[in-house]
Amino acid sequence: MTLSMYQASVPVFIHALTNLSTVLQKAAAHAEAKKIDPSALLGARLYPDMHPLVRQVQTATDLAKNSSGRLAEADRPAHEDTEQTFDELQARIAKTITFLQTLTPAQIDGSEEKTINMTIRGHDVSFRGQPYLLYFAQPNFYFHVTTAYAILRHSGVEIGKMDFIGPLQN
Amino acid sequence: MTLSMYQASVPVFIHALTNLSTVLQKAAAHAEAKKIDPSALLGARLYPDMHPLVRQVQTATDLAKNSSGRLAEADRPAHEDTEQTFDELQARIAKTITFLQTLTPAQIDGSEEKTINMTIRGHDVSFRGQPYLLYFAQPNFYFHVTTAYAILRHSGVEIGKMDFIGPLQN
Repeated sequence: MTLSMYQASVPVFIHALTNLSTVLQKAAAHAEAKKIDPSALLGARLYPDMHPLVRQVQTATDLAKNSSGRLAEADRPAHEDTEQTFDELQARIAKTITFLQTLTPAQIDGSEEKTINMTIRGHDVSFRGQPYLLYFAQPNFYFHVTTAYAILRHSGVEIGKMDFIGPLQN
Repeated sequence: MTLSMYQASVPVFIHALTNLSTVLQKAAAHAEAKKIDPSALLGARLYPDMHPLVRQVQTATDLAKNSSGRLAEADRPAHEDTEQTFDELQARIAKTITFLQTLTPAQIDGSEEKTINMTIRGHDVSFRGQPYLLYFAQPNFYFHVTTAYAILRHSGVEIGKMDFIGPLQN
């Protein structure tokens, strides 16, 4: 199979979000086993002016949804940032994956030169599809998924890098 | 330009390593300004059984070097893990980028189905090139680059996500 814009986006995001779901399941189980208030993990952060776990998950899911949706030129559902529990974060991931599964290779393949207009921190930016995916969406997405993992690891949850990588795809 | 295995690997790794270099420059400058022993940052980690900053940088550079090298079927230089200073980490990044720059699209494009045999934690694994890049090399690479950033952010170095993302590629 030839690498394509769809192959490098939708299934990659679904795979990583599925692994994030596993990591969050382990965190919820850890809180229950250790009688930790789950909000201590959900609100944990690596530095006072960094975002807490909940926001890392919200941002990661939005990056997957919005970048794939923009490349597909599909209507994107709005996901309000109201999650306060592990179950609600799992629901957020699930609805993001459900949306991603509606996108087809026909919508995204060939989007290398597609113009993506967006606003980043108050500045209008115009990308072409390929650099948007490779240099903005992908690293940004992995930044937040990894930071979610790092917050939990830093908080003592027993997870390992293979939880982040997930089942090997051969 | 059509997305290709080269486009999704070598220049992406070079860009992210260049940004990591910037982050490490800011960390070194922070240590100097605050009269912090640089080894306090170089040896910092997010949890006692996680790897410290130096090892995160070593692993990130090796993932870029080895994954691109395997896809290209190129001889890969061995980089001994001897770095103990920020300057030495910068040199490690520089020599990794120099190696990556020797690899050509002709060597890597079309490697989607190439067989990649390697050993992961004592287990022999055989990948095809595309899943190797998308589901193993890329997330693994970003995991370590982000963790390096997170260690420094957690240690109070004044860096922001745009240092991690780097100059926007349009």
